[in-house]
Order: sequence, then structure tokens, then C-alpha cells
Amino acid sequence: MGYSVEGVEGLGEIQPGSDLAAIICGAVPLWEGDIVVVTSKIVSKSEGRVVAASDREQAITDETVRVVASREHPGGVTRIVENRQGIVAAAAGVDASNTREGTVLLLPVDPDASARALALGLRTLTGERVGVIISDTVGRPWREGQTDIAIGAAGVHVFEDLRGTVDASGKPLVVTMPCVADEIAAAAELVKGKATGIPVAVVRGLGRFVGDLDLPGARSIQRPAERDLFRQGADEAYDEGYRAGFDEAQAEGPLSPND
Amino acid sequence: MGYSVEGVEGLGEIQPGSDLAAIICGAVPLWEGDIVVVTSKIVSKSEGRVVAASDREQAITDETVRVVASREHPGGVTRIVENRQGIVAAAAGVDASNTREGTVLLLPVDPDASARALALGLRTLTGERVGVIISDTVGRPWREGQTDIAIGAAGVHVFEDLRGTVDASGKPLVVTMPCVADEIAAAAELVKGKATGIPVAVVRGLGRFVGDLDLPGARSIQRPAERDLFRQGADEAYDEGYRAGFDEAQAEGPLSPND
Repeated sequence: MGYSVEGVEGLGEIQPGSDLAAIICGAVPLWEGDIVVVTSKIVSKSEGRVVAASDREQAITDETVRVVASREHPGGVTRIVENRQGIVAAAAGVDASNTREGTVLLLPVDPDASARALALGLRTLTGERVGVIISDTVGRPWREGQTDIAIGAAGVHVFEDLRGTVDASGKPLVVTMPCVADEIAAAAELVKGKATGIPVAVVRGLGRFVGDLDLPGARSIQRPAERDLFRQGADEAYDEGYRAGFDEAQAEGPLSPND
Repeated sequence: MGYSVEGVEGLGEIQPGSDLAAIICGAVPLWEGDIVVVTSKIVSKSEGRVVAASDREQAITDETVRVVASREHPGGVTRIVENRQGIVAAAAGVDASNTREGTVLLLPVDPDASARALALGLRTLTGERVGVIISDTVGRPWREGQTDIAIGAAGVHVFEDLRGTVDASGKPLVVTMPCVADEIAAAAELVKGKATGIPVAVVRGLGRFVGDLDLPGARSIQRPAERDLFRQGADEAYDEGYRAGFDEAQAEGPLSPND
């Protein structure tokens, strides 16, 4: 039981309109069951999702569906938001690293659709059933540092659904559903990502997670806010509660001595 | 640029007092720069961290340092807590899967110390500089499913600190600090974990992250609550704010018409 992860070098600079499937196929042989993990940045570049850096704050506002939390710090304000793609991330995923001077990149409009198009292209060019994950780097509550997650997926089972199966001692695994798409994105970051500048990795030996192109995408990983215990930052929720409690007490009027 | 991940089979059932270093060395050859990822469950078993299942709720309470959030559901109450190890997890990491009938497992008392002891044992037995990560499976805010994280580490750089370096286009990477220990734990879960019952994986080819045994452990990944925007569930923070606001309005007394 094992697999390998390899960074794909020599892709060159990706431009608006670049054919990612052809470029990747030209740089690395792909086999049945391979999973190609692509940094969202080059997908955004190929889709022309670039805006002037001077418009960064406006771009973050435009990409924001819901502010989850924010905090002021000496350098400005960090806004953690749910963006149009449904992903909760700092700055709505608007990215200034590894971009042309004076520009920032927005995330792909629909990362699952981008993943499907790329997977279809790779399958057509190679004749092999390969999967695609589009990854992005995000921070997380409770733990320092960042990890890569899957923001788009096609032809890959994003979860290994163990609910209803039993463990090695025969007990039912009631709630266990490993998010393999996020784990594969994390595994791929170790050879690509910001440090190496390598934007693509090929994961070989996990073909059991590869499937049809109409499998649910990475959007299915996102927990709806109404079911999320952490749908709002603690300070924001406290402030909202404070105002509600204050208003409620005032509406009730003064306590009578017998209350 | 690449690496491999291999599950280690044939370890047999781990008992209290089992010598994990000797058992692992007997099952797989280890080379310079290898990282051995061990499911916390077998570390707990070897350390005798087992209690009767009937004491599960009490065990969760005992392991809890701080309740972060809780929610009632048809099957009972989910408590998300910070446990003695500083990890925020459901049920304080108390685990009922893959355990002997009628028992549950607690996490190791000090996972970083367990990792150091195991790394020292492996280095002594093999003469090779290997790293150790102890992993556990956790849920997370905003995203469905679970991923494995590093709860203990020794001889491994838990972060790749890119702060102060520049990206491929020469711009400084101000806040980028990938949590490689969590990413390696996630990568290892894909061949081990609850599904396969394989408790150990060897990661080969990431020797650049292997270092001295006195490197900071996985505890350094935990963000202190006071710096965490999500240190408390949204409902709990709202309720606390509500009570404070209500009390404040009452203390102020009735508004005069001129207020």
C-alpha cells in the first residue's frame, strides 16, 4: 500500500488563454489512476483572473459573500470571509504572491468547472482516466501555519465515505469520512507551492480514489454556514449577542422590585 | 522533486508496554531522512492509555481544559474542546474506534515526548536520522469530513518557514509558513488510518524536513486561544455577549428621555 508524489517542472509561464491540459501533458507522462494537483494560481492565470493591485481591497470586497471575522493589526485589517466560491479564507483568496508586479489574482470563477475542463482535456489527450484537484493555500482556526486544500476537483472521490463500514475490530465507523481531496492537496503542497514555485504535482498510486467526471466536486466539502459551529468569529458573535441582549433589556424596561 | 508514502503492515496488535521502535524497525527498513508517521492510537495502546467505555463521558470531561463549542443532536451532545494536549477536537480526542470491546483510548499524555522517545529509539536501532510524527484524525470548521494532523513530532521541522524569503517573482512571502507536519500527517492518512487499519506509514524523500530531536514539537502548531479568532463557537460567544449586554443595560438603569 503506497503512492508517490512528483513535482512537475518546466511548465513555463502560464498566460491568459494557455491550454493547461496540453502544457501538462507535454511536461509529464500521465497514466491510468494518476491524480494531477494544480495550484489555483496557474488556473487563474490561464483564465485571465487578474486585476490591478491598486484594486485589491475592492477585489476582496467584490469576492466576498459573507464576512466571517476580521481583526485589525498594524499592517491593516485581516478579513476572513466566505467568497463567491464558498471557501472561507483570508482576503477571499485574492493573492498577491507569484503574480506580475502591480497585479493580484482572483480565484477561478468556478474551480470545480475548471477542474472538470482540465480533467476532460487530460483524459482526451492521454486516453487515461486521470483525476484533477485544484489546490489553494489557506490558514485555519486553532492551528498556526497554512495547509493546501482542494478548492476544485473532478474525476476524484473527494471523501472516502466509511460511514456504515466497520473498523478492524468490527465496530461501526459512524461519522468517519476522511476528506481525501484535502489530504491529496496537502500531500502535493510538499513538492510544489510557494516555496518551490512548482505549480503542478502528479500523485501516483491512489487510483482507487479516481472515478467519473460527474462525481461531486470540491464544493461538496464546504459546510453550509447554518450547520457550522464556527460560522462567525468569536468577537463578532459576542458583539452581536451583546447588542441583542442590551436592546432586549432596554425594551423590557426597568425591573420592578418584585421581579 | 518527489517523495513516496508507504503503509507498514504486519505490526501485530500493540499492547501496553510494547516497544514501538523495535516493532517498527522489525517491519520496515528505515533510511536517512525517512519520516515515520504513527497513528496516535498505537502510541496510546503502548502507553496503556485505555479506560472503560462506560467512563467515556467522564474521561472526556477529565481530558478537557476548555470547552470551545457544543451542540445537541439526536445521539447526544458533541463537545468540541481544547484537551490537555492543547488540541481542539471533538470528544477531547477520546477514541472508541479500533479499540477492544468495552474500552476507549485516551491520547498520549504528551505526544511530543512520545514522538521524541520513539525517534530516539528508531535512530538508535537504525543509526539513521529519521523523523517521527504522531497523527490523529480531526474534524475542522467550515469543511466537511476529517483530515489527519500532527499531534506529536520529533526530529522534524513542523513548519517550513518562508517568512522573509521571496517568491518566484521576487516579492517577499510575508506570512507564508506551511505547516508541513500537518501536511505529512494528511499524506500518510491516505495509506493508513481507519479504513485500512494500517497504523504506520513511512514517508521517503522529504529528508529536507528532518532535523535534530530538540526541534520544536507539534505543540508549537497550536495557536493560543487569546490569538484565535475562533477560540469559541459562534453560539457560545453570542450567548456570552447577550448576557453581558443584558446585564449592562440593566445596570445602567432606565434611559432618561434625554439620553
